[in-house]
Amino acid sequence: MEKSHENEQPVKAFGWAARDTSGVLSPFNFSRRVTGEKDVQFKVMYCGICHSDLHQLKNEWSNSIYPMVPGHEVVGVVTEVGSKVDKFKIGDKVGVGCLVGSCRKCENCDNDLENYCPDQIMTYNGIYSDGTTTYGGYSDIMVTDEHYVVHWPENLPMEAAPLLCAGITTYSPLKYFGLDKPGMHIGVVGLGGLGHMAVKFAKAFGTKVTVISTSLSKKDEAIERLGADSFLVSRDPDQMQAAAGSLDGIIDTVSAIHPLLPLINLLKTHGKLVMVGAPEKPLELPVFPLLFGRKLVAGSAIGGIKETQEMVDFAAKHNITPDVEVVPMDYVNTALERLLKSDVKYRFVLDIGNTLNKC
Amino acid sequence: MEKSHENEQPVKAFGWAARDTSGVLSPFNFSRRVTGEKDVQFKVMYCGICHSDLHQLKNEWSNSIYPMVPGHEVVGVVTEVGSKVDKFKIGDKVGVGCLVGSCRKCENCDNDLENYCPDQIMTYNGIYSDGTTTYGGYSDIMVTDEHYVVHWPENLPMEAAPLLCAGITTYSPLKYFGLDKPGMHIGVVGLGGLGHMAVKFAKAFGTKVTVISTSLSKKDEAIERLGADSFLVSRDPDQMQAAAGSLDGIIDTVSAIHPLLPLINLLKTHGKLVMVGAPEKPLELPVFPLLFGRKLVAGSAIGGIKETQEMVDFAAKHNITPDVEVVPMDYVNTALERLLKSDVKYRFVLDIGNTLNKC
Repeated sequence: MEKSHENEQPVKAFGWAARDTSGVLSPFNFSRRVTGEKDVQFKVMYCGICHSDLHQLKNEWSNSIYPMVPGHEVVGVVTEVGSKVDKFKIGDKVGVGCLVGSCRKCENCDNDLENYCPDQIMTYNGIYSDGTTTYGGYSDIMVTDEHYVVHWPENLPMEAAPLLCAGITTYSPLKYFGLDKPGMHIGVVGLGGLGHMAVKFAKAFGTKVTVISTSLSKKDEAIERLGADSFLVSRDPDQMQAAAGSLDGIIDTVSAIHPLLPLINLLKTHGKLVMVGAPEKPLELPVFPLLFGRKLVAGSAIGGIKETQEMVDFAAKHNITPDVEVVPMDYVNTALERLLKSDVKYRFVLDIGNTLNKC
Repeated sequence: MEKSHENEQPVKAFGWAARDTSGVLSPFNFSRRVTGEKDVQFKVMYCGICHSDLHQLKNEWSNSIYPMVPGHEVVGVVTEVGSKVDKFKIGDKVGVGCLVGSCRKCENCDNDLENYCPDQIMTYNGIYSDGTTTYGGYSDIMVTDEHYVVHWPENLPMEAAPLLCAGITTYSPLKYFGLDKPGMHIGVVGLGGLGHMAVKFAKAFGTKVTVISTSLSKKDEAIERLGADSFLVSRDPDQMQAAAGSLDGIIDTVSAIHPLLPLINLLKTHGKLVMVGAPEKPLELPVFPLLFGRKLVAGSAIGGIKETQEMVDFAAKHNITPDVEVVPMDYVNTALERLLKSDVKYRFVLDIGNTLNKC
């Protein structure tokens, strides 16, 4: 029999996949590897829908492999462990984020920064070292090297799966760039999946938080729902001028082309503007304001596995969870359409465990 | 008698000034204040010609005040001290850089970062708190608050005056951004007044240094004269590709519009591109490479007074001096023309002490 997705590997698996650049998902029978010595097999319970799923489903980053089973905010329960697994046992709650592999020998891997390893293997739309394709968490089971699996804290709801991408993407730069000191004043640009997590972490670190958005319509939710301290309309020059020089750092979650100068002007001297959104075209960088305030513009992408564990533990301790709308598996295409219109506060989570029914 | 430059203040002074945007300098009689309680009066011996003098002489930054006596790399010998001066005595060798005043009460001033004080007073083309204009080091004497004066080490030649701007401008970011660790690999873009000092300091810190230039013609001088370890032609894509991911940090001294992407690609993950040149128009900033390498682009401007003292002491200890062409005062206009054509290795220094003759 010719190798097919269904019998490429020994273990039957089932999920939803896109077959082409339409990005429309439909049920998909495929297969997973046998649980290796260092592997953890787990039943997927919840999986977040990330904005990057949209881009990859439609091949907007020109690197899509079809069929594609998305999902890199995955929480589940261990069903089998390999003979040399020492971190996990059957029944443990676990999480897998954006990565399921890396080289394990480069400087970044040595420093628990697998997320910057040039040979990292993405949880879906990636290629394992044996040449097979990775499939993500929109599926019934996953088999993952224990190194890339985190313990999911008992008191953290499993629906909080978006911590594994949206959470770590905002937590990591706040820590690395030293923007986690109580009393600091932090700006958050954009109030979506990433932005609302940035607000929650920054508040938990004891900083004062200002949300910056193009539209006044988000003011109430920023302050009343998420606990931000203040709100700025980025298109209001008077407001922006009045707040000039007030922020120690900014987490900019916006992926669209947008001007940096008004944000740089909000920074104090030595302030830091950290991009976590990914505009596809270059932005305009004015140099004088960087020089005369010793300011910096930086980027940051997700986080390493050790830091991801630290982040979920921190979230559990401080009761930080993403605001999610839990939806059944067969709602996924509608959810993707709504996400494209930013019609969600702030993250869809698929209830895989209860609603993924094999056709 | 109406107040004129000559009798605005009680103490007669003489220098060379530009009268208009032609930028041509000519002899100029003016006046300095009486030495105040905290002031140091000194005879100027040497003064460097900085590239920014060119811009300001011609009002290219649209903030020029005429007549303008330039000069902010000034070394001299103390001739008088105020009653409350405790750092200096008559006969001491001293230096003054880009600043002669600041508010002394903001957070930056409190942290010895007068160079980022919003109310800093520039050494020339600035305004003292009494409303009078500041005049720089192309002159016979200066009177400066001792806070803004540094001790000039005995074994440091006074002709090394460019340390006070070109030196501190490159020393400070190497220190602040942690690019001063032995074994690091540092890039220096552009080999002029700033660039050649960046090479010397980076080598003295024990780092490996690569000079990056548009033209192969600077290779020999970079390696043989300045001691750089390697050289890259920025317009050669093969060379640049071969060096991708090799640098911990880059000091970019180029003031012209230039692409950042090839420089960002030279950085290792977590690498830092620090601009010290000041392009007048925004540069194109690609965001993806920042994100996926947690890289940053920053700016830095001169340094605080305490750090300037530290820098000249370090230079004296490690025998670091700028490569200078010492010229007489009446050569200044020719020197400016040559500087505009980058026809100097690497800094002109005016021999004020021996050649400034009152007409």
